[in-house]
This record gives sequence, structure tokens and C-alpha cells, in this order.
Amino acid sequence: MAGVNVDLVLNARHIVPVVPEGVVLENHSVVVNEGLIVAILPTADVTGVYIAAETVDLPDHILIPGLINAHTHASMTLLRGLFGISTLHSAAEMIRSGTTCANDMYFFPDAAASTFEKVGLRALVGQVVMEFPTAYATGPADYFAKARAMFTKYKDSSLISLAMAPHAPYTVSDASFEQVLALSREFNVRVHLHLHESEAECVDSATKTPSMMCHQSAEHSRPLQVRNMQRLGLLNDQLIAAHMTQLTDDEIAAVAAAGTHVSHCPTSNLKLASGICRVSDLLAQGVNVAIGTDGAASNNTLNMFAEMKLAAVLAKGESKCCTSVPAATALRMATLNGAKALGIEAKVGSVEVGKVSRKDKGCLVVAHARIVCVLQFADLVAVSTDCVEMLPMYSAISHVVYVAGRENVSDVWVAGKRLLANRVLTTIDEVQVKQHCKKWHDAIRDHHAEMVAAKK
Amino acid sequence: MAGVNVDLVLNARHIVPVVPEGVVLENHSVVVNEGLIVAILPTADVTGVYIAAETVDLPDHILIPGLINAHTHASMTLLRGLFGISTLHSAAEMIRSGTTCANDMYFFPDAAASTFEKVGLRALVGQVVMEFPTAYATGPADYFAKARAMFTKYKDSSLISLAMAPHAPYTVSDASFEQVLALSREFNVRVHLHLHESEAECVDSATKTPSMMCHQSAEHSRPLQVRNMQRLGLLNDQLIAAHMTQLTDDEIAAVAAAGTHVSHCPTSNLKLASGICRVSDLLAQGVNVAIGTDGAASNNTLNMFAEMKLAAVLAKGESKCCTSVPAATALRMATLNGAKALGIEAKVGSVEVGKVSRKDKGCLVVAHARIVCVLQFADLVAVSTDCVEMLPMYSAISHVVYVAGRENVSDVWVAGKRLLANRVLTTIDEVQVKQHCKKWHDAIRDHHAEMVAAKK
Repeated sequence: MAGVNVDLVLNARHIVPVVPEGVVLENHSVVVNEGLIVAILPTADVTGVYIAAETVDLPDHILIPGLINAHTHASMTLLRGLFGISTLHSAAEMIRSGTTCANDMYFFPDAAASTFEKVGLRALVGQVVMEFPTAYATGPADYFAKARAMFTKYKDSSLISLAMAPHAPYTVSDASFEQVLALSREFNVRVHLHLHESEAECVDSATKTPSMMCHQSAEHSRPLQVRNMQRLGLLNDQLIAAHMTQLTDDEIAAVAAAGTHVSHCPTSNLKLASGICRVSDLLAQGVNVAIGTDGAASNNTLNMFAEMKLAAVLAKGESKCCTSVPAATALRMATLNGAKALGIEAKVGSVEVGKVSRKDKGCLVVAHARIVCVLQFADLVAVSTDCVEMLPMYSAISHVVYVAGRENVSDVWVAGKRLLANRVLTTIDEVQVKQHCKKWHDAIRDHHAEMVAAKK
Repeated sequence: MAGVNVDLVLNARHIVPVVPEGVVLENHSVVVNEGLIVAILPTADVTGVYIAAETVDLPDHILIPGLINAHTHASMTLLRGLFGISTLHSAAEMIRSGTTCANDMYFFPDAAASTFEKVGLRALVGQVVMEFPTAYATGPADYFAKARAMFTKYKDSSLISLAMAPHAPYTVSDASFEQVLALSREFNVRVHLHLHESEAECVDSATKTPSMMCHQSAEHSRPLQVRNMQRLGLLNDQLIAAHMTQLTDDEIAAVAAAGTHVSHCPTSNLKLASGICRVSDLLAQGVNVAIGTDGAASNNTLNMFAEMKLAAVLAKGESKCCTSVPAATALRMATLNGAKALGIEAKVGSVEVGKVSRKDKGCLVVAHARIVCVLQFADLVAVSTDCVEMLPMYSAISHVVYVAGRENVSDVWVAGKRLLANRVLTTIDEVQVKQHCKKWHDAIRDHHAEMVAAKK
């Protein structure tokens, strides 16, 4: 009796597939071939049906979809103290904490994209646009030229998707926003920006403070209003709005009607005293809310487990309702909602044998289990429960959200490739990353000391 | 040239002593003898001055005072899912996450106290009082008799202190509160209770809802007001009030004037939608605010690192001021303020060679460095920085609060005894604890299934 040859079988004690919501599969296996999830079945039924090139036993683990960091600035990690750039370092931290995909926005997106691709991490890489010159570009025309080159370069990448990333309404002019919209339409890509991050931003916008860094039209008021984002045609289902801590009921309704996605960054919003996003109200109105860590400068980690727990408890505190954002919802926000926000939900975001009636060029379409479906990539994370902190466990979903920490992530796969194996990075030289950090640390510290001395 | 013989020298890359605030000592050593900190000096100066029976090098570490969990219910950890008791399990989790002292309140405090003492953890163990009978006691008289027996039993313990722990104003009668006060005075001990935890509690109290579980006096209104705690004489500097999410300006002033201590439990308060404690306002009025995790049922961890970070960022969000509760303040809240709340600040709470002009029977008084001072116990925690997540580091204090997780704790000492050595528990059999958890898990799951079946 011959079985089907496949690349990988993961035998997991528990699987939280996210879809259907609230379900925990016990003693099931995920069968992976060519990077895609081809079957999910009881482990007892695998023998004779599938012949795996590699089998990984996860006897004390919870297997979940890879976490999707829906708003971050990955190369900011060396900024934890002062200044620097290192996407590789961020990638190492993200993989070690169960993130399989990042929605990144920072200068030098080409360097970020090539690093993510090299280490095997999935990413939506934002093409930054600002009104003023930086080390990366001389001005709007240069930002757009660089963006256009990137769209050509990464058009066939499976791991890397691109987005337009106008920084924020207070640093980008109407003329530039119009170009952003044109590029978003031409390449059918997301637009990722900071929006309604702080009260000051909204007040400044409404009162047209001259300190605004870019020129604004006379009709401006709060950044989100029809006279602004809507007037520009940007309030649509391609928009990923990060932060959104300041929202009126009318604005929530407008966001919901437009299908705009929200990246909720609770730690950053608290730490910068920006405000608290009305997540419960957004979800109640049907808005797709994902979760992001923001950059290391305002968090100071890229730890999606901490962010998921804070999103779950802060929503309860904010809404004064202890049933707001239950664990299953928080986990969905950190996985499938992130995939939806990034426009890759047909590819990733849940542990499913494909998603029916969805289109995605990047995935194979196969007949399986009597339905034709689009197979998903095996972006998976194993959370170990074999430690004092994780025992006893009665609900795997509650445990993943409220009890687990980044350190409980044992293994990570992206498109079936194992990027973390028993806490060891397989595509990144951890020793080298640490040496690199220490070298930069010393250089930055010395530079800082010189600057302080020069001022005296 | 002969040096002084001592038990232990810790050579640390960084020391954050907490006192003085904001200071980081580089390449210093802590010298420990008979469980007490006898000297802190540059590591380069140790040779020839001290001869240590044991030397521990901490070349990539930050040494901080042990964290003090100022409000918890340690034996609740098996309740993470359903129900059970295990102080040993909690002790293991606390030690592994850098907690050296717990302010515990639960039934069967004798079992808790003996377990803490056995494993070498410091604790203030609350003697529970409620109006109604439980498995632990038949009623108020029985609770008080048991408390009195405990005061006798633990009067000479160095690690274990006792407190009265009337559960809350809505479960304890005035008559019982009067007895609590009498015992607090007789034994000179703290009174630890839940106070102003939720809006409902305050509203119920103000409106004298008949659903209140115990009789109350006619004068009652909000639990903290003069007509209640103050009237009873309990609003004083022996009181540790946990939660305190509902406070008017007048109530904050009353708390400050009385010298009452507040145990802030941010995760629990958010998760139960209880409200957000006005920490910034309390600190501004000079109130001593410590940090607690609450029990596993409402958190669901005993992780003081997560609690410290949340306390720091939530205070900024709550006060809308990004300079509220800076990292140094958060660390002080989790260490020295905890010690003050528990009434043991002369013994522990900072890395200092004794505290001048304070009285404490439990400590030696010696002449050192030309001043007479009370030596402190060596309750210390080493946080490893040698990992991707912790690099690079420019501020050890900011890193401890915003970047470090429970998993970065490498070593823990209580009174100079090493309870955790390179992540390995020395006084608790971790394998046995895990087996115990699994056994209870199965029993509870089966019992739950039987109950569900019986209901059908």
C-alpha cells in the first residue's frame, strides 16, 4: 500500500487553526508539500496515507498560524538606545518570537526586502514617501522613482509584497498623496500609513497649525475626514491605517464603510501617550483590526506575544467590558486579520487546507477533499507548553494569548521552511548578529560621547 | 596580605541598585556574607580585600534587587484553567521570573507559608478573613483563631512575615474589620485587602445593594470614604490596598495623608475591565505604589517583568503624559516600593550596603564604611543581556523595564541563597512540579467532564 510522498508532516499535540474560530484540534497532523498545507488530519491516520521526507513531533506543543506583525519599522532595532540600522537583527528577533510576516515601513526598503527574502521571512515592505529629503531620497520625485524600481524588482517574489507607505498626513502633501493613490491603483497594492496616531496630530490638522511640516489644502481638518483622506480617494480597502487612537463614531463608520484596515499598536500608543484605539467599537462595526508592535524605538520590542496579550486586556479596559476581544479574537487579530490587512489572506493567516473561492496568483489551485481550493503556505509556529509557566493548560487558545511568551516559541516555519528549530535560528547566524550589535553599540556610544564632548 | 572571608561575591557587568535612583554601576561587585550585602565596590578592587567561598561572574548581566510581587494569590496557579491549589508551582514560576518576595493572600495560608519557607522565597502571608464559611474556616471566629495561631508559629521566621487579610469591604463585616484592626495593632502587622477594585464595588457600596454578601453599617458609601475605612480606623500606614482603580481626588488625598500603600495590578484590572488605577496622580501625591500580578485566574501569569512594563506604559496612557512613570520609577515600584508596602524596606528592596537610620530587628547592625547602618538581605536577580532580544543596550534601566522578559532572568538569590542558577531551580524539583500539574490537570478535567455529564 503506497502513500503520497510529501515534504513534511508536523504531528502536534494541539492545533489552533484560527479558522474555524474557537476550535482546538488534538493530536492532529499538518501535512506540508512544496511549502503548502496539503492536509490536516488525525495523527493516527497519517501512516499509510502520507510518506514524509521529514517528520517533526510536537508532543507538548500548540501549533498556530505564524503571527503577522501588521505595523513595524524593522530596521529600527538598533535605535533601542540611540541610532542604527539592522533588519537582520529584527528578523532574528521576529522569528524567535513567532512572527512569520511583517508589515514593514522604513527608509531603504530595498535593503529590508532583500534581507527578509534572504532569511526566508514573509513581508509587506512599504515604499516610504515623505515631503522632505532624507538620507534615502532627495524629495518626493526621488521617493516615487525608487518605489517604481522596487515594484519592478519584486514583482515575482513569493515572500515579498510591496506597498506604498506615505509616512503620515502631516509629512506628505496632497500632491504626493495623489501620486501614492495612482501607484496603488497601477500596481494594485496596499497603502500603509500612520493615521490618527495622537490627539495632537488631529488637533494640529483641524486647526492648521503652521508648524505642520508639509503644506496642506485649505479644506483640511482631522486627517481622516472626508475633506482629507476621503477627498483624496485614499479611504478604501487598500488602506492600512496604523494606530488610529483618535476616532469619533462617524469616523469609525466611515472606516467600516470603506473597508479600511486598522493596525492596532497598543504598547506604542500607551508608551507615547498617544491614546487608546477603540478596538471593540471598530470590531463591532466590522472593521478588520490587526496588531503591530511598531518600531523598537516606541515599544521597545518586536514581541507579538506581548502585543497580543495587551490587545486582549486593553480592549477590555478601554470598553469597560470583560468579554471584549476574547482570546480567540486576539489570536485572529494577530494572524488572519493581519493577513487580511496585508492582502495576503488567501496565502496565509490560518492553519487550513486552502481557502475556498478566493483568488491568489501565488498559490497552487488543487482538488482536495472533494472541493477545489487555493492552498495556503505553511507559515506555522509551535509553542511549547512543557514548562512551569505553561502548566497546567485547559484552553490552548487562552494559553497562547494570556500565558505564552516569546520564549515559548520552539519552532517556526515560513512556506514550509523551518526558520527556527528548537529555538535555534537556521537562516541567520545568531552569533554574528550579536557581534554586529555589540560593534554598532560601541560605535554609537563613542559617537554619542564625542557629540556630548563637542557641545561642552 | 589577608582579606576578609565572605560567603559570596557577585561580579556584575551592570548593577541597577534602585537607590540612588537612575544610577547604573558598571563592573562592580556585590559582596554577600551570612545572607547580607556587606559591600558594593568596583570588581577590580575585590582582590586582596575579600576572599569569597563562592564567586559568580555575571559578565553579560544586569543585577537588580529581587522583584516584589505586592499582590498575588499564589496557590491559584492551578486555577489557570479550572481549579486547584499549588503554592509550590507558583513559587517555581515566581523564582524563574525574578520574584524574590510575594505578598500573598489566599486560603490555607499555613500551607503557603511553609512552602515559601521551604523553598527559600520571602513572603508576606495574609491571614484571610471573610464573613462566610469556606473549606478553610467555619466563620469569622475560626478565621481569627487560625490567624492568631499563625502569628505564634511564624514570630521568629526571617523569610515569612504575616499580615491580616480581610478579603474586601463587601465580604467582611464592620465587626470583623474591628477585630482585624485589633490584631494588626497587637502584632504590629500590615492589613492587606482588595479595595476600590471595580466601579460596581463602589456603586454597590454607595447604594447599599442588598446583594452585598455581608451586612454593612448604615453609614456606608464608597468603601474608602471616611464613613467606612477611615471610620473603622483602618485607613493608616499599615494598610495595603490592592487595585484602587476607582479614586476621586479627595480619596487620593486621604490615602496620601494616611500613608496607605497601594498595590497596582494593571493586567488584572484591564482583563477584568475593573478600571485603570490613577498611578501618576497617586505618585504625585506621595502615595507609595507597588506592583502586583494578582492571581493566575485574572492575569494569567505571575510575571512581574510583564507587569512592570505594563505599569510603565499604562501610566503614560492613563495620564496622557509620556513622561509619567519612567523606567526607573517602574523598577522602584516593583522593588523598593513593594518592600515599603510590605513593611520590609529595611531588609530588602535595593542593592545597598545597608540603610542608615532605619530600625529592623531581623538584620545585623554593623559598622561599615564609617557609618552605622542596618544591613540588607541579598535578595538579588541577574538579568542576562546576551541574546538577540536584549542587544544592543544603551540604558540598563530602560532595558530591564521595556525589553527584558521573565526568560532573561538567569539567577536569583534570596538572603544570599541561590534559588535559580543559570535558569535551573535549586530548591524545587521542576520535573516533579510539572508532573504534579499534569496529574491535577487530568483529575480536574475528568471531574469537570463528570459534572458536565451529570447535568445532562
